[in-house]
Amino acid sequence: MHLTSQNVERLVEHFTKLPTIGRKTAHRLASYILKMPKEEVYALAEALVAVKDHVVTCSICCNIADIDPCPVCTSSKRDHSTICVVEEPNDVLALERTHEYKGVYHVLGGVISPLDGVGPNDLKIRELVARIAMGKSLSAQVMETQVGYGNKVPAVVEEVILAMNPTVEGDTTAFYIAQLLQPFGIRVTQIARGLPTGSALEYADESTLSRALEGRIRL
Amino acid sequence: MHLTSQNVERLVEHFTKLPTIGRKTAHRLASYILKMPKEEVYALAEALVAVKDHVVTCSICCNIADIDPCPVCTSSKRDHSTICVVEEPNDVLALERTHEYKGVYHVLGGVISPLDGVGPNDLKIRELVARIAMGKSLSAQVMETQVGYGNKVPAVVEEVILAMNPTVEGDTTAFYIAQLLQPFGIRVTQIARGLPTGSALEYADESTLSRALEGRIRL
Repeated sequence: MHLTSQNVERLVEHFTKLPTIGRKTAHRLASYILKMPKEEVYALAEALVAVKDHVVTCSICCNIADIDPCPVCTSSKRDHSTICVVEEPNDVLALERTHEYKGVYHVLGGVISPLDGVGPNDLKIRELVARIAMGKSLSAQVMETQVGYGNKVPAVVEEVILAMNPTVEGDTTAFYIAQLLQPFGIRVTQIARGLPTGSALEYADESTLSRALEGRIRL
Repeated sequence: MHLTSQNVERLVEHFTKLPTIGRKTAHRLASYILKMPKEEVYALAEALVAVKDHVVTCSICCNIADIDPCPVCTSSKRDHSTICVVEEPNDVLALERTHEYKGVYHVLGGVISPLDGVGPNDLKIRELVARIAMGKSLSAQVMETQVGYGNKVPAVVEEVILAMNPTVEGDTTAFYIAQLLQPFGIRVTQIARGLPTGSALEYADESTLSRALEGRIRL
């Protein structure tokens, strides 16, 4: 005998498959859905389907977008000679919130993590290297032949900023990419490690503090 | 300029409207949805729509169900003379898990909470009273006229068990319902308050301990 609605139970099952949602939260969400206006639930369902139907990966930077190439990669207001390499699409949003960065991005889709079975080939590292190589060779051709490529010329990349998470995997990935880019003779940098703003030196862990000391700057 | 997919942003907005889901969790869920197999996301969207389209409220016990009346209210294996009054549909599931209760239920849909603007008329209290009154008068008619109502006769309710949450609002609601049912002359009980199994007396709060002392039973 079904003491409650099978439809509700099915929704609970689906919710529990999502990360951070346990059985109790799933039940709570389902109860909330039951009380929500029909139109809002329909809109949520449509938003879910739309994400699967219309979201694409930008063929240049590998970020998620609604069109390919994405608006950042086609923008004339961005500095296409600087590529910031990040792990996930959300990292792009975090960097944009600083309003400090005017270059373009490259989204790896993760980090090298042998324990989780993620190797360099599972990430968009090959695409990054190809992107840099193409910019270099094509712009060389343009200079040789003087053929006008207009805006289509892939920019010559001058700097690659590695902005992976400050974890063992992030550092490994950064080191791997830095090695890989050495032949191109471009500047490869990594974002600074140190004390976060508003924190207390007293409670900082040893690793953070050593990195903060190492990376000290002259005032 | 949209740095990420507008479709993804829309989904994030929808997720943040749900309880227990903040902006960060919403982003995490959206990222997960992006990586999920298309069929599973479609199934989730369908489950959401199905809940709004097919879930009904049982006209007898006010619990959620796929059919009206619900399987509990129409079951011949349940004791229809005992009604357990609970706040929400999930409470029915919790009680069923004990395998101890064989009666039927009545789901109030909340508790009296003046601070939240919830009064007795916002709950299914009127329906509970009508249910008890109807059982009483109809069975009286049957006894008078000897007309065979078959299974359709609403059962005479002999006991109402109040199983609201052990909160101020739950107690208020229980007290209110007990007062309301006094004219019917039926047994109205409340589930026991005391130390939960596996807890430590040492750490029990004063209220729990006083209620445990008050409700002590002879061995």
